[in-house]
Amino acid sequence: MEIKLNRQSDQSLITQISTILAEKIRSEFLQEGSQLPSIRSFSKENQVSPVTVSKAYALLERNGYIEVIHGKGAFVRNKEQRSTNESRSDYNWQLTIPDYIQRSQSMLNKRMEYAMKFSSATIHPGLLPSVYLVNEIVAILQADPQIVARYGTVQGDEDARKAIRDYVKTYSNIAATPQEIIVTNGVQQGIDLVAKTFIGPGDIVITEAPTYTAAIDVFRNRGAHIIPIPVDEEGMQTALLASLCLSKQPKLIYTNPTFHNPTGTVLTKARRRELLDLAQQYGFLIVEDDSWNEIYFDDNPPPPPLKALDTSGHVIYLKGFSKTLAPSCRIGAILSKGTVHQRLLSAKSSADSGNPLLTQKALIPFLRSDRMHAHLEKLRIALEIRRDQTIALLNKHAPKGVTWIEPKGGLNIWVSLPSNGNTDELLWKAQQAQITFLPSSACYPGEPQYHHLRISYSYPEPHDLTQGIIKLCQLMESYLQDMPPVR
Amino acid sequence: MEIKLNRQSDQSLITQISTILAEKIRSEFLQEGSQLPSIRSFSKENQVSPVTVSKAYALLERNGYIEVIHGKGAFVRNKEQRSTNESRSDYNWQLTIPDYIQRSQSMLNKRMEYAMKFSSATIHPGLLPSVYLVNEIVAILQADPQIVARYGTVQGDEDARKAIRDYVKTYSNIAATPQEIIVTNGVQQGIDLVAKTFIGPGDIVITEAPTYTAAIDVFRNRGAHIIPIPVDEEGMQTALLASLCLSKQPKLIYTNPTFHNPTGTVLTKARRRELLDLAQQYGFLIVEDDSWNEIYFDDNPPPPPLKALDTSGHVIYLKGFSKTLAPSCRIGAILSKGTVHQRLLSAKSSADSGNPLLTQKALIPFLRSDRMHAHLEKLRIALEIRRDQTIALLNKHAPKGVTWIEPKGGLNIWVSLPSNGNTDELLWKAQQAQITFLPSSACYPGEPQYHHLRISYSYPEPHDLTQGIIKLCQLMESYLQDMPPVR
Repeated sequence: MEIKLNRQSDQSLITQISTILAEKIRSEFLQEGSQLPSIRSFSKENQVSPVTVSKAYALLERNGYIEVIHGKGAFVRNKEQRSTNESRSDYNWQLTIPDYIQRSQSMLNKRMEYAMKFSSATIHPGLLPSVYLVNEIVAILQADPQIVARYGTVQGDEDARKAIRDYVKTYSNIAATPQEIIVTNGVQQGIDLVAKTFIGPGDIVITEAPTYTAAIDVFRNRGAHIIPIPVDEEGMQTALLASLCLSKQPKLIYTNPTFHNPTGTVLTKARRRELLDLAQQYGFLIVEDDSWNEIYFDDNPPPPPLKALDTSGHVIYLKGFSKTLAPSCRIGAILSKGTVHQRLLSAKSSADSGNPLLTQKALIPFLRSDRMHAHLEKLRIALEIRRDQTIALLNKHAPKGVTWIEPKGGLNIWVSLPSNGNTDELLWKAQQAQITFLPSSACYPGEPQYHHLRISYSYPEPHDLTQGIIKLCQLMESYLQDMPPVR
Repeated sequence: MEIKLNRQSDQSLITQISTILAEKIRSEFLQEGSQLPSIRSFSKENQVSPVTVSKAYALLERNGYIEVIHGKGAFVRNKEQRSTNESRSDYNWQLTIPDYIQRSQSMLNKRMEYAMKFSSATIHPGLLPSVYLVNEIVAILQADPQIVARYGTVQGDEDARKAIRDYVKTYSNIAATPQEIIVTNGVQQGIDLVAKTFIGPGDIVITEAPTYTAAIDVFRNRGAHIIPIPVDEEGMQTALLASLCLSKQPKLIYTNPTFHNPTGTVLTKARRRELLDLAQQYGFLIVEDDSWNEIYFDDNPPPPPLKALDTSGHVIYLKGFSKTLAPSCRIGAILSKGTVHQRLLSAKSSADSGNPLLTQKALIPFLRSDRMHAHLEKLRIALEIRRDQTIALLNKHAPKGVTWIEPKGGLNIWVSLPSNGNTDELLWKAQQAQITFLPSSACYPGEPQYHHLRISYSYPEPHDLTQGIIKLCQLMESYLQDMPPVR
């Protein structure tokens, strides 16, 4: 097994090997129970000393990824009994075909249903206006059945783009024309289109650390050199970015400034200004992922998006209507200007020739109605109650040494164990109790931190939320008691 | 302007420069009216002699892409008056950001509506079962409104995958399990996912020549080295492929063996067998784009797909339900096996986290009903009538020297002018008469042929079809009369 090592990196080879293998295991490219190469053969193929490989394997074992069986070798640890529906042995030749998928951690937790699902930053269906939406969709289809027989355009239905223009004007104070909007299959496709258009091997991409798991997947798969900038309670530390720009030339910054995923923090106004100034000064693009800025609590709206402040076409703004309105339609949008817009449109054209027309038409009436306003108001209240409930439970039940950031909006709470904790370990125990969350190891583009976890309070039923948080606190308590002392 | 020249290539630098610039113009990366670099500066930047550049510019001018104005320079030719809604001057800095979109010709003709549209290989909405589909969709939504509030999975809705499994079993004799199916946003996304998973800079991809325009876009944008294999009346010339394999190692073959786009030809049984044998012998993947194998004429079904003959997991099968059933839902599927399937699933996950659920649920009842069978029967008859009508008109009105291949199924007729003809020129004249078609220049991954065109007879109304073909024949006649003699 040959892997890509960077001998100029500040990271030790031990860390690099262990990180790359851990990612392959988490992405399930190395499947449970499968055997790792022997230390000797791995060392030979990658031209590193056997001692280095042995230390990397030891680190992997300590972090629970592999099991070393004396006299037999190292094996990917089994988390669960699995049943596969096909024998894979006929297709072994396929392993000779290399691929460009370096990381795929967004698939984590996707396979199974858990009773208490805190891993999914999505909103419980009961909080979404299904019946109203269905009535609108039925009316549209019955008025013009041929809608189902027509293609949309690559850029997206014009009326849908007009509705999105009105929406971002109303709720985010962004001035855009329908010509500057591309309809996408959710925000995820927006990130992917940006990456396939502008990012290739070695290009420098800046993200927050931690950041959105699937964005790391996308940029890694394009061969980007991702440099993470840590987040504090005021969001991305733009001062660190400014000093980085003195020596490196970022091509693009991916940021989620408002109710940041996963920490829930909000980039301050001053830092927003600074980020835009840096983009102008150094000529990089800002990709602003603004999935849920409307979901603010305590009647306290966040500062305007970067896009609302941008006059020079530096910001590519990504907005989605899956989470807050209709997951089943997967409507998102990219707002950008000039040739950046034109090039993204070309990328959309080769990616899928355009979104389905039906799901675009389906959302237009609701997006434009007064009901949209009332719905967001209701959503804020419902999610604020859930946040309060979760914080109250953590206050009451979380063990000593566990801390968290109270979010002012969005769907997530970022919880930290003492720094020698490992939430991958905790997750395995939690899953046995029918609980999932997002472990922090999936949220770092570089060397991961292992001692945080993200709780999404927006998906479970209120009763499951209560039961689940109490149970999770108990699990944290017994995990911390059993934990070896700080090394 | 720096471009990528291959000094090891068999193609002359003159041809390379003119081809690359022509592609940039057709992709609208070089916009109409914009000035090309001077011969001196282009020659300097790309380290080629001024004579070479001057000859390349002359070739571009002869082919109608640019206009050289004495004392002023070379300009991209204006095809139409355009109105733009924004001044682009504020965003000039964006041109300093390089991109990875090398080609985007699938956007050709997408911008405007033409009365007689022969450029679009899609089926007239009146031939699709809109009312039945709408009734089914309404019933589903009213029975369970919360469908609109639920996410689909990355792989696609399980019931939709079961319905697709049944469909390909019934209509294409393919045995697959729902676990081996990934739902995609049309066949286009299938091609894109395959390319992003398996193709990177320098990887050898084989296609037919000519082939599907947007597939060329996708592979070119991944940096593939595309080698075209010519098509004859029995489809891709597999004997040429076999001899190519002696010296080159293809990683993947993209083929459209049944009612090939754009020529309409069908790969014979013997060649299908040979192609599979080559794949096994040399260990490459076959991507089989099978968009319309159900649309056969004269009660004469085509041979089974390659996928139906594949026992070793070499074929990645792409199927779509946009064209023949519901464009508005954009449902396609990838069928593949083993780790190839798993890796494609990872790619889908980072591309868009999965198709919308609504459009998947919408198609299930119809796909599974007896009506599907009746609908396909009706579609075959309706399109056969259109083919016959078009062929009869060509027989009667096409000028001497124009030939065509009579298709046994599908949506397209491939028409050839004498070899010194140029259908890019013809297209400009046709568009002024409200007619469009696909010029052959967009269909070749290497050096293009200019003297063919694709007529899709499936989209226009019958009356427009008649008027349009007669008019097009007249245009061809006057074009051929005015044409300079063979050079």
